[in-house]
Amino acid sequence: MRIAVLGGDGYCGWATALYLSGKGHTVAIVDNFVRRQWDHELGAQTLTPIRPLSDRLTVWRELTGNVIQSFVGDVTDYDFLSTMLREFEPEALVHFAEQRSAPYSMIDRKHAVFTQVNNVVGTLNLLFGIRELCPDCHLIKLGTMGEYGTPNIDIEEGYITIEHNGRKDMLPFPKQAGSFYHLSKVHDSHNLMFACRAWGLRATDLNQGVVYGTMTDETALDEALINRFDYDEVFGTVLNRFCAQAAIGHPLTIYGKGGQTRGFLDIRDTVRCVEIACLNPAARGECRVFNQFTEQFSVLQLAEIVQSAGTKLGLAVELKRLPDPRVEAEDHYYNAKHSKLIDLGLQPHYLSESLLDSLMNIAIQYRERIDTSLIMPRVNWRSATNTRRVEHPAATPVEAAPFEAAEMAREESA
Amino acid sequence: MRIAVLGGDGYCGWATALYLSGKGHTVAIVDNFVRRQWDHELGAQTLTPIRPLSDRLTVWRELTGNVIQSFVGDVTDYDFLSTMLREFEPEALVHFAEQRSAPYSMIDRKHAVFTQVNNVVGTLNLLFGIRELCPDCHLIKLGTMGEYGTPNIDIEEGYITIEHNGRKDMLPFPKQAGSFYHLSKVHDSHNLMFACRAWGLRATDLNQGVVYGTMTDETALDEALINRFDYDEVFGTVLNRFCAQAAIGHPLTIYGKGGQTRGFLDIRDTVRCVEIACLNPAARGECRVFNQFTEQFSVLQLAEIVQSAGTKLGLAVELKRLPDPRVEAEDHYYNAKHSKLIDLGLQPHYLSESLLDSLMNIAIQYRERIDTSLIMPRVNWRSATNTRRVEHPAATPVEAAPFEAAEMAREESA
Repeated sequence: MRIAVLGGDGYCGWATALYLSGKGHTVAIVDNFVRRQWDHELGAQTLTPIRPLSDRLTVWRELTGNVIQSFVGDVTDYDFLSTMLREFEPEALVHFAEQRSAPYSMIDRKHAVFTQVNNVVGTLNLLFGIRELCPDCHLIKLGTMGEYGTPNIDIEEGYITIEHNGRKDMLPFPKQAGSFYHLSKVHDSHNLMFACRAWGLRATDLNQGVVYGTMTDETALDEALINRFDYDEVFGTVLNRFCAQAAIGHPLTIYGKGGQTRGFLDIRDTVRCVEIACLNPAARGECRVFNQFTEQFSVLQLAEIVQSAGTKLGLAVELKRLPDPRVEAEDHYYNAKHSKLIDLGLQPHYLSESLLDSLMNIAIQYRERIDTSLIMPRVNWRSATNTRRVEHPAATPVEAAPFEAAEMAREESA
Repeated sequence: MRIAVLGGDGYCGWATALYLSGKGHTVAIVDNFVRRQWDHELGAQTLTPIRPLSDRLTVWRELTGNVIQSFVGDVTDYDFLSTMLREFEPEALVHFAEQRSAPYSMIDRKHAVFTQVNNVVGTLNLLFGIRELCPDCHLIKLGTMGEYGTPNIDIEEGYITIEHNGRKDMLPFPKQAGSFYHLSKVHDSHNLMFACRAWGLRATDLNQGVVYGTMTDETALDEALINRFDYDEVFGTVLNRFCAQAAIGHPLTIYGKGGQTRGFLDIRDTVRCVEIACLNPAARGECRVFNQFTEQFSVLQLAEIVQSAGTKLGLAVELKRLPDPRVEAEDHYYNAKHSKLIDLGLQPHYLSESLLDSLMNIAIQYRERIDTSLIMPRVNWRSATNTRRVEHPAATPVEAAPFEAAEMAREESA
């Protein structure tokens, strides 16, 4: 199958592109490298040293014989996008090419506007591009479980049957997103549903949970193929961040009560879920929603799991509660359905199996690259203008065997 | 009360600004005149001859002694918007400043992208502006009944209590909008709800039905104060369009079966609803939704009402069915609640009272200005690229006493 992975140089996109290529699909990566640009903007780096895309693709070809084509450009640029669609003629489009950090979208007005315009316009362009140039192409769009918020009822997969005043209908599940980023995905979902209805497009909206892990079978082949591992307060997802903190003896930073419960999945399941969606396309006119996660955890549960794993590795791991910089329920009911991908054959990797291999060991291996000034939250949801940090990493990185050193560095930066 | 009316040079905005000024409020109009620009783009004109804003405001001041301040600029320009907020210090912001035509948003990709970016960014700017500069200011935002679509259950005012698997929650009513324009309002509504929750803003989302009529007590004072009356296929709302068609002997154009049922209201109720919202502000943190319409009609019912009224005036009015250019249910259940504004004191003007005065007579008075080439629908929802008309109005407009002449002109232009 001919599959274009938009955002294929990013965290989920890179792992997905390699996985699909390894499975024999003809893959193209479409990316404008803005994710690397945001690292420069924030003065942050991924824990793992990632190579330029051209190097990555060369090594992949040398190791496997598989060629991944690369289209460099921005999906908000319709001339570029339509040229790519004409040249590559995809049968499936996997759309990761969005700004995906909630804190980034909450920095200030410009970041909020950028996030919503970038994400909404990119997806609108895709919908029009498919309608005009490849109407049978299956759009696999990355949404987020955060679109649903934390309602006091079970969360269904995209749609819910509502009985009301003696009548009944199946309607889109109500959305209560918690950041301008999450809202951008809500906007996308509504646009997607409409385009499928009006134009007979086929789409799968993958409402993904929080992804953790770095290693997949493909990225593990060579260090040149290593994936991103973000641990900073803006782009670091909670579990990756906790593992990085544990590796350097930084207390695990729990926001508020820690009762915030979300769906989680291993990046090895992300890539498999995308392939499952590709191999089982939505029908023409269908806008299908899968909740893409495998397990629910609260933040506090995750912290305790990391603490326990760290202890086994000889690390001293403390937990530290911080005032929650987000506006969210810190303790709430949460029960989200996630059976559709399982029904289609997903065999989950559970956290208990992957924690040490794919997370703790990577964090320890690269811990000398950690910049502790990136860890504490600076983006406060309640403020409309958040200043970014002024201090920058010391010329000499934190040493290994670093528990006291890291603690000192953290205090200096506080 | 100090009230800024954003989009105050447009159809609803102009009537609202005058009404509020007449009631003794201190009013400012904020507008960039893009609505007049769209007339140029489409080669269309309002049926009624509207004056430049500066003339309108001068005449209003001369007639009533009331000064309406004017701020000329674009709400998507935050520098402009924040300067206005600092200078005028509004207690309420009435936000009509959005692209409000569904067909305009469906012309092609650029019009869809423009509509969503313009509307979403303008509202985001307002939310940030209020948060940063006037956090106690009440935002009264024009939404649309079209956000709900046509579900097979009763439509509530913004929120619905859902019982599901033995649990219960009050959640945002599911949205199923039917054009990129209507979707932009859905996006706004979600952004609005979040900002109220995160920042404690106060907002009222007025989900307005289809507005009809031209005259209000204030615009009737002098012809220089006359309001827009759009009858073209892009900006003309259905009832105004039918009345213009009846006035020149053009068959009333019914899209599809005509069973499309919507909420409608007289523009005299629009202005009163806005004042009611101003005088009864939402609480801090509250995002309140009012369904702002007074009566439900199907398109076919409206056509029959106009036919009957036309007959009384001696006009020969035919009905003509066209294939529906929109993607919508042509026959469906529809029962939308609309009691909150009534509870706050709205006394509706019903269609039966206003049809002749405010619609048919105006249409007949200005019928020589009608360009029949603007009437037939050209924007097809099923197409991603719609060409605009190539023919332009003849140098000599359609004559009065025009039934045959208009018919001929129409056939020539077909």
